[in-house]
Amino acid sequence: MDHLIFENFSKHITLSDSEKSYVSSLLSEKNVLKKEVLLRQGQTCNKFFFVEKGSLQAFNINEDGKESTIMFALSDWWITDMDSFVNQTTSNLTIAALEDSKLIELDFANLQILYKELPVFERFFRILFQNAYIREQRRALYNISMTTEERYLQFVKKYPAMVEKITQKQIASYLGVTPEFLSSIKKKSAS
Amino acid sequence: MDHLIFENFSKHITLSDSEKSYVSSLLSEKNVLKKEVLLRQGQTCNKFFFVEKGSLQAFNINEDGKESTIMFALSDWWITDMDSFVNQTTSNLTIAALEDSKLIELDFANLQILYKELPVFERFFRILFQNAYIREQRRALYNISMTTEERYLQFVKKYPAMVEKITQKQIASYLGVTPEFLSSIKKKSAS
Repeated sequence: MDHLIFENFSKHITLSDSEKSYVSSLLSEKNVLKKEVLLRQGQTCNKFFFVEKGSLQAFNINEDGKESTIMFALSDWWITDMDSFVNQTTSNLTIAALEDSKLIELDFANLQILYKELPVFERFFRILFQNAYIREQRRALYNISMTTEERYLQFVKKYPAMVEKITQKQIASYLGVTPEFLSSIKKKSAS
Repeated sequence: MDHLIFENFSKHITLSDSEKSYVSSLLSEKNVLKKEVLLRQGQTCNKFFFVEKGSLQAFNINEDGKESTIMFALSDWWITDMDSFVNQTTSNLTIAALEDSKLIELDFANLQILYKELPVFERFFRILFQNAYIREQRRALYNISMTTEERYLQFVKKYPAMVEKITQKQIASYLGVTPEFLSSIKKKSAS
């Protein structure tokens, strides 16, 4: 197993070598091709994905066919449909690979074992979810208080590595506007 | 100390009587009057508030004077500026009482003690933050995929007890629209 996920754990918790071996036994590696679907809207989400290499997108398609991106995940990010995963309910999201990617999967049952056998993972995920909550709360504030232009510039500034990997259409779907509207804003902003 | 906060803890963790006493020693009660400010935008947030009775509002005022509500908290809810509290940075939010309220305060230093002395609180807050993350992720999806009318109807359906306590202006500030726009939507929706 690659080391990136253990570096990720070590940001918040310390594991002994034997604990690392045990954790490894609960994880599995998965290689996916570009556009491969990991979770389809309507299924129950059983996996928490860690991106070792590559990038993923989580998006919803509504009744009118409008695509809305809830998040992108690059290398060193965790991603799942948290609602579906935690509550084991039907997912509102599809998760797919934006490029050929290497993932680590932690499934729902194994995470429960991890919490029980190594409670230090309560701390790890407490901090992970706390930071995710902060990120989403900030996004909610941006969504209701900023113009689309401000939100676009803020996204580009905050996630430069992501902007290199994704299309303008995908950025528009994250901002909740049409690609045409985003394009008109960018022209105005550049002039 | 009132029992509501201990009922709240008991949703996710079990505490012995002596642990409860210890936890009580780290908490403090606070009574606030309607409109009293608990945190002012620009300060560092040192408190995590639990609402025993009453209700609070957390909002941002931008450079143009536009008020945006990040959340409301009723009885049995936790509220803070998570970013400012966790990272001990300047707050973007003001937290104020919507009515005379009774609160329990947990300050930043005491929460660190709690994590250390009673690690079961890592689990408690892991679940609290996980649920908060789910709520905010759902809100982000609504913000970018739904019309204002759909978001208004969804808010009313999801938080009926809140709607009784807050003004239309406050609901508008949560949805990120002007009160006039919300009013026109409601008229359209009722006709």
